[in-house]
Amino acid sequence: MSNFKKVKVEQGARFELHDALELTGAEVSINELPKGAGVPFVHSHRENEEIYGILEGCGRAEIDGESVPLAAGDWLRVAPAAKRRFFAAENSPIKYICIQVKAGSLKNYTATDAEIV
Amino acid sequence: MSNFKKVKVEQGARFELHDALELTGAEVSINELPKGAGVPFVHSHRENEEIYGILEGCGRAEIDGESVPLAAGDWLRVAPAAKRRFFAAENSPIKYICIQVKAGSLKNYTATDAEIV
Repeated sequence: MSNFKKVKVEQGARFELHDALELTGAEVSINELPKGAGVPFVHSHRENEEIYGILEGCGRAEIDGESVPLAAGDWLRVAPAAKRRFFAAENSPIKYICIQVKAGSLKNYTATDAEIV
Repeated sequence: MSNFKKVKVEQGARFELHDALELTGAEVSINELPKGAGVPFVHSHRENEEIYGILEGCGRAEIDGESVPLAAGDWLRVAPAAKRRFFAAENSPIKYICIQVKAGSLKNYTATDAEIV
């Protein structure tokens, strides 16, 4: 495995990076919903924490029955067991990143994991 | 800990999500470099894989001495030991996400970790 790998993400409904980049610590997807659309199912996770970042547009999430308004610049942590579903607004598409990681897996980071060369 | 948490990321040089969202499986930062600027140091990691996504603008990375052109839509995996440094272009700022996760920590994901409710 090389020390790095790069891909160009083209516009589209969903682009998954795990296999494209040979990721070992996360799955990352870039998702687009047209205005008025929603993910067609509610889901939760067994072990994985999800981190969502809204890149463009607006919409809402339903998380354990709570309606959460979403707009560009919003970032969320969603616990594994939470039942979640995402929607674009009626009058706006939404583009968001979803990062899937194993809950509790990060030990050190930044100052305690990095080495300045 | 609640089943979810949300923050609004304002414009700025760097916004770190780990503490703001009480993340347990990743650190995520949103970074902006003005045109002509670069991160002032080269770094590598002990255990953590980094995933970079270019959101706006363009620039380049130097990874183990190799120059890698970067533009909006590009995503990269960088192995822990790789020596990396990021730069904005001379005529463009760059905005990018950096996701830090423990290399090898993801076991199952999507179809093998999710449960449709």
